[in-house]
Amino acid sequence: MAQENLSVVLHAKGDLRLDNRPVPEPGPDEVLLQMHSVGICGSDVHYWQNGRIGDFVLRKPMVLGHEAAGRVVKVGSEVTHLKAGDRVAIEPGVPRKMDEFFKMGRYNLSPDIFFCATPPDDGNLCRYYAHSANFCYKLPDNVTFEEGALIEPLSVGIHACSRAGVTLGSTVLICGAGTIGLVSLLAAKAMGASQVIISDLCAERLEMAKELGADFQLTVTREDGAQQLAKKVEDTLGAQPHVTIECTGVESCIQTAIYATRSGGVVVLVGLGAAMTTVPLVNAAVREVDIRGVFRYCNTWPMAISMLASGKVNVKPLVTHRFPLEQAVQAFETSRQGLGIKVMLKCDKNDQNP
Amino acid sequence: MAQENLSVVLHAKGDLRLDNRPVPEPGPDEVLLQMHSVGICGSDVHYWQNGRIGDFVLRKPMVLGHEAAGRVVKVGSEVTHLKAGDRVAIEPGVPRKMDEFFKMGRYNLSPDIFFCATPPDDGNLCRYYAHSANFCYKLPDNVTFEEGALIEPLSVGIHACSRAGVTLGSTVLICGAGTIGLVSLLAAKAMGASQVIISDLCAERLEMAKELGADFQLTVTREDGAQQLAKKVEDTLGAQPHVTIECTGVESCIQTAIYATRSGGVVVLVGLGAAMTTVPLVNAAVREVDIRGVFRYCNTWPMAISMLASGKVNVKPLVTHRFPLEQAVQAFETSRQGLGIKVMLKCDKNDQNP
Amino acid sequence: MAQENLSVVLHAKGDLRLDNRPVPEPGPDEVLLQMHSVGICGSDVHYWQNGRIGDFVLRKPMVLGHEAAGRVVKVGSEVTHLKAGDRVAIEPGVPRKMDEFFKMGRYNLSPDIFFCATPPDDGNLCRYYAHSANFCYKLPDNVTFEEGALIEPLSVGIHACSRAGVTLGSTVLICGAGTIGLVSLLAAKAMGASQVIISDLCAERLEMAKELGADFQLTVTREDGAQQLAKKVEDTLGAQPHVTIECTGVESCIQTAIYATRSGGVVVLVGLGAAMTTVPLVNAAVREVDIRGVFRYCNTWPMAISMLASGKVNVKPLVTHRFPLEQAVQAFETSRQGLGIKVMLKCDKNDQNP
Amino acid sequence: MAQENLSVVLHAKGDLRLDNRPVPEPGPDEVLLQMHSVGICGSDVHYWQNGRIGDFVLRKPMVLGHEAAGRVVKVGSEVTHLKAGDRVAIEPGVPRKMDEFFKMGRYNLSPDIFFCATPPDDGNLCRYYAHSANFCYKLPDNVTFEEGALIEPLSVGIHACSRAGVTLGSTVLICGAGTIGLVSLLAAKAMGASQVIISDLCAERLEMAKELGADFQLTVTREDGAQQLAKKVEDTLGAQPHVTIECTGVESCIQTAIYATRSGGVVVLVGLGAAMTTVPLVNAAVREVDIRGVFRYCNTWPMAISMLASGKVNVKPLVTHRFPLEQAVQAFETSRQGLGIKVMLKCDKNDQNP
Ligand SMILES: NC(=O)c1ccc[n+]([C@@H]2O[C@H](COP(=O)([O-])OP(=O)(O)OC[C@H]3O[C@@H](n4cnc5c(N)ncnc54)[C@H](O)[C@@H]3O)[C@@H](O)[C@H]2O)c1
Ligand SMILES: NC(=O)c1ccc[n+]([C@@H]2O[C@H](COP(=O)([O-])OP(=O)(O)OC[C@H]3O[C@@H](n4cnc5c(N)ncnc54)[C@H](O)[C@@H]3O)[C@@H](O)[C@H]2O)c1
Ligand SMILES: NC(=O)c1ccc[n+]([C@@H]2O[C@H](COP(=O)([O-])OP(=O)(O)OC[C@H]3O[C@@H](n4cnc5c(N)ncnc54)[C@H](O)[C@@H]3O)[C@@H](O)[C@H]2O)c1
Ligand SMILES: NC(=O)c1ccc[n+]([C@@H]2O[C@H](COP(=O)([O-])OP(=O)(O)OC[C@H]3O[C@@H](n4cnc5c(N)ncnc54)[C@H](O)[C@@H]3O)[C@@H](O)[C@H]2O)c1
Ligand SMILES: [Zn+2]
Ligand SMILES: [Zn+2]
Ligand SMILES: [Zn+2]
Ligand SMILES: [Zn+2]
Repeated sequence: MAQENLSVVLHAKGDLRLDNRPVPEPGPDEVLLQMHSVGICGSDVHYWQNGRIGDFVLRKPMVLGHEAAGRVVKVGSEVTHLKAGDRVAIEPGVPRKMDEFFKMGRYNLSPDIFFCATPPDDGNLCRYYAHSANFCYKLPDNVTFEEGALIEPLSVGIHACSRAGVTLGSTVLICGAGTIGLVSLLAAKAMGASQVIISDLCAERLEMAKELGADFQLTVTREDGAQQLAKKVEDTLGAQPHVTIECTGVESCIQTAIYATRSGGVVVLVGLGAAMTTVPLVNAAVREVDIRGVFRYCNTWPMAISMLASGKVNVKPLVTHRFPLEQAVQAFETSRQGLGIKVMLKCDKNDQNP
Repeated sequence: MAQENLSVVLHAKGDLRLDNRPVPEPGPDEVLLQMHSVGICGSDVHYWQNGRIGDFVLRKPMVLGHEAAGRVVKVGSEVTHLKAGDRVAIEPGVPRKMDEFFKMGRYNLSPDIFFCATPPDDGNLCRYYAHSANFCYKLPDNVTFEEGALIEPLSVGIHACSRAGVTLGSTVLICGAGTIGLVSLLAAKAMGASQVIISDLCAERLEMAKELGADFQLTVTREDGAQQLAKKVEDTLGAQPHVTIECTGVESCIQTAIYATRSGGVVVLVGLGAAMTTVPLVNAAVREVDIRGVFRYCNTWPMAISMLASGKVNVKPLVTHRFPLEQAVQAFETSRQGLGIKVMLKCDKNDQNP
Repeated sequence: MAQENLSVVLHAKGDLRLDNRPVPEPGPDEVLLQMHSVGICGSDVHYWQNGRIGDFVLRKPMVLGHEAAGRVVKVGSEVTHLKAGDRVAIEPGVPRKMDEFFKMGRYNLSPDIFFCATPPDDGNLCRYYAHSANFCYKLPDNVTFEEGALIEPLSVGIHACSRAGVTLGSTVLICGAGTIGLVSLLAAKAMGASQVIISDLCAERLEMAKELGADFQLTVTREDGAQQLAKKVEDTLGAQPHVTIECTGVESCIQTAIYATRSGGVVVLVGLGAAMTTVPLVNAAVREVDIRGVFRYCNTWPMAISMLASGKVNVKPLVTHRFPLEQAVQAFETSRQGLGIKVMLKCDKNDQNP
Repeated sequence: MAQENLSVVLHAKGDLRLDNRPVPEPGPDEVLLQMHSVGICGSDVHYWQNGRIGDFVLRKPMVLGHEAAGRVVKVGSEVTHLKAGDRVAIEPGVPRKMDEFFKMGRYNLSPDIFFCATPPDDGNLCRYYAHSANFCYKLPDNVTFEEGALIEPLSVGIHACSRAGVTLGSTVLICGAGTIGLVSLLAAKAMGASQVIISDLCAERLEMAKELGADFQLTVTREDGAQQLAKKVEDTLGAQPHVTIECTGVESCIQTAIYATRSGGVVVLVGLGAAMTTVPLVNAAVREVDIRGVFRYCNTWPMAISMLASGKVNVKPLVTHRFPLEQAVQAFETSRQGLGIKVMLKCDKNDQNP
């Protein structure tokens, strides 16, 4: 096996480097992966620019990257369901303790979960990476590595729509047409939503949303009032939406989300903004509009793979840029500038295909 | 308004007649409808051939028909949400009492519900028919009358899939590719099922299922063992299905349904067969495979209309035969012979379009 | 029947009078009731003091009262399940339209619901009152009229605990030990909560809570920080509570509710305060602490009656004051001063028993 | 530590012996326990008498016992939440693989779960036993070892009532007043059931049920017809029960369960009888009475401990016999004869207290 292991390491706020790290040895429950495609997430860029997200503070160099797929090159002694050569998608969160959350099937809430590229845990933007085999999922032949990598953001959309209870005939408002808004759109449509309206400040992003199946686009400005926007949404759909998926984290959008949603419906908070938020909580309470948070995802990889394999969800258009791993800094700069949607890093020198 | 009201009346077992009945006057909460398209259901044929279904016995002449759409020609004094000219789909079940079931949103279980063409309640296979306005749903311009009529069987499929909890990435076995199996297929796919396998004795019906989106077809014979079929299903899908929707009522199919379904999954019983059934209940119990019945539907018309309007569900191919109301007996004979799938009666002399 | 119908009528903000109104004639679906016991609710006092609650503004004289029980004296032509002499508890909300909310079993969300003593709908603080028979529930012999009247506030607690998903072994924080906090306590214990901690500014109310079964009391001051209180709750219980039921409407309590609740748990908002509220929404979102509102109740009377009849819930200690109907103004004044918990008005001159 | 480890070993059908086995060494994730109290379960007796239960066949000597509590004497290298001296209750099922069932919080369905005293896995009817620390739960001081051991059967009742959706005001029929019927009764009452009716062939068992809180007892004979019994239940309660928990496994009881349950309600199958069962499935289907199995339990120990600690559930009366470990054969004989309810073996020579 190659001894080189080029890795995208964040040393400190603003200090992103390509280091050569040792190739890890997989533990008994782990597999060693040759990384193929890794998407750059807003959080990777945020750590680079700010050195922290909320309470998670970079205190020592950390490999970035958590939207990833690769090929198994070595399996740990106790791994039975994977073998060298298998192409896999990586679920980046691995619970460390068998606590109440894990036992109840909500392991994403486990407070000491390992999570790729959340300090102090290393991510997988590198050539070789070892991960818990139980959180690596074999890809069928007709699902590409990039699709495999995109399961990570798609999972956020799936989890959001599951928590929202999107089902046949649901009407849905999505606030924000960034990656997360777009994958929520894909998930909502796949779960039976009859009408999805999506809002953004940026017309280009709404154009992409349209291509991905949005029924209505709402171009907004920062000055629009929350109640006015809610009214526009109702007028467009002919009725208030059953569900709103908030994917901006912006206070006024959360307000719009509450005003806009039908009585008895659900607002899902995916976007993360300021710690304290001023919202029309009484309006939500007396109309029994539930407000539900989303923290990453759990149990989504198998269903995501089967949706991709069956062709029912198409995430391919999300990838707008590709760079070889060696050009990671340039790739991060592209992502930082908000050009396109998803920037993909190609980690395998011999195979830069999707 | 025309005084003629040609109606398909079942006088006794085997005695189907075209009678001229008076045009009814709508009550304060009702609308009078000029009927346009009415599908023939297996139960209509069954009453005709047997004079009864279970405890429901024909004791006096009854108009048949309950899969119906028409146009409002007159509204009762208290009706506000509909007006003459509106095209509507008819939900045939109207609860008579505000009992516990109705108050809890499961009005289909209300024991004294009115239901079209279930003795002694008259159906709507006629020219003019009065119905509770609250159970008539306005059709958008891009939904045809026939699609409106097909919402009735489609609702059975929607209710079955809702009770089954079909969601993104579900794998589904459907037993039987009659009308009910096919609408369950449509509903399952629209709710996010990644793979649907459907079984029938009859190759033609499976062909139709394939056209409607089934991923796998399983041609069975009456001699096949339940466990063998369950094994075949697992082998075809690569894993046991999460959900089985039983649409035949045949004992061996119910057995197959239980054996085939994944632990923790759901078998939905839509098909209705013999009163007593011998089944591997312990197998279901120790694998926590839930067995859930389906009795018609509730709260399905609005979501069905939005799915049809958005083009996400296509029921049109189900209609294989059309007859003018005057040829009702011939239409019933066609249905009885099991030719095609859905036989549609066209009740409006001036408009026999879909 | 007596022609006198003494009624507690609010003519305008601050203008409460005892008027003699005509005895109503029950409609076909209604029963005429001789009122027995009617509790004074915070909202009755609020209308008296302010002439409005939110968007509900008193524009013409309105009879107050909605926590009520009485005896049937006459039944409408279509009523079959009640007869003269029956003792009944009254559910004050009666949906007027068979809209989507009603059909789905959430009729409390129906926007044009009739509701006793919510402008412009008259309440039942009077001698004779006619109400929809479907929303009158027969009391067993071992349930008193006052218990019947208390089903109304108890229903708020039941609905809150149902929405919270309180179940066996749940640990619960209740903010506020007014009537609503106390009935939530009773409901939580009856649904299997193992530990309930309840907070209030007022030590006497916490004393009552203790008598009613609270495991821990937390005396708070307006100066306490939300995070500090959350910490105290965790320390007291040994872990964060699964559920918090907020019954004050105070902003800092809602903040405490969010901080205090365990990841994956639920905050139920029962208390209604200022329209806009500043809350730590990101804290709730990333821990998937759901925020669910409560608007009154639905489908609670039957279960409340069976709990009272079986002796599993004891609401009797809530009644701290009683006045004959003639002394209504004095009774309202007592309630306004916040003395005791529930002030009961006795409407039947010949029977002033509980 | 003592080197003696007296163990109750089943060598073959009918061949129960007291062997001295080596004291095990706990693995890194395990704790070594000095056993204190272990209940004899019907399945232990069944293995002794028959050498198998269904597909689980005794092929080599196996230690019996799975209803157990003991004291930690040694902890594995990675165990942090327990220490020597802690008193714990043991959850006997430990999933071996992190499969889909485990990840979704339904680890009881994991096909290769380790389970005490299910061949080939050894149980804990012995002096010293090593178990996964994650499935040992610390007992508070006010919960006895015997209560700790009884959490195992109680968990079946809790899981049954959870799956049934028992909640405030539920009315419940329980078929069979053996240990499992009785713990289901305790769980149902604790979860808010207003009325429980319980049936058995044996008057003494019903007497015990009455003491434990059953509202009605129904003495049945093997000749009673299922529909007649269902009618009796309805007459006794005044309405059909919302929920039936079947704890006999007898075919006629399952039939009664279906006929007896209210439309829209739930039958839970706990009792396990013949592989094939003849039942009125159409009756269940058209009334949407769900049939749900129960396989052991998951996630019940924490809530059971909190209920015992708070005194809300009292399992102590279930213990009717006690024997020192040395008299295990006599204890098994007592259990086999169906005398009393729970026979407890006392494994600690120096502490034979409850
Ligand atoms: N909860 C979780 O587990 C989770 C996971 C991933 C991302 N997130 C969060 O989701 C959010 C979206 O992530 P992303 O990667 O799509 O980010 P992004 O920046 O690509 O997209 C956000 C979009 O919102 C739009 N927007 C900003 N203000 C708006 C307004 N007032 N109205 C409408 N649109 C507006 C922006 O133009 C942008 O297109 C972020 O807050 C991120 O932190 C949360
Ligand atoms: N529960 C309800 O509310 C409800 C509503 C409508 C219909 N139904 C019931 O649903 C069932 C289906 O209705 P339908 O109108 O589609 O009937 P149908 O007769 O058109 O379809 C039944 C299909 O099952 C197939 N079949 C028969 N034996 C089979 C076997 N062993 N394996 C596989 N397939 C087999 C038949 O070939 C046929 O294609 C009927 O039992 C009907 O009574 C129930
Ligand atoms: N959502 C609904 O359907 C519904 C129905 C009824 C009542 N309510 C609302 O519920 C709330 C409670 O009603 P109530 O009748 O019990 O009122 P109440 O005034 O009797 O009780 C409120 C209690 O909260 C206590 N409190 C105030 N500030 C506090 C603080 N910072 N910390 C702890 N406790 C504090 C008060 O001392 C008082 O005992 C009100 O806001 C009312 O409007 C809502
Ligand atoms: N599903 C699971 O995970 C699980 C777990 C434990 C036990 N079980 C099963 O639960 C059942 C009960 O276990 P148990 O330990 O209480 O057994 P048990 O033998 O002590 O109790 C069964 C009771 O049913 C009564 N009974 C028999 N026939 C009856 C009839 N016709 N009507 C009414 N009562 C009748 C008996 O008199 C007896 O009291 C068994 O079938 C056992 O295998 C299942
Ligand atoms: Zn990400
Ligand atoms: Zn039909
Ligand atoms: Zn009130
Ligand atoms: Zn056992």
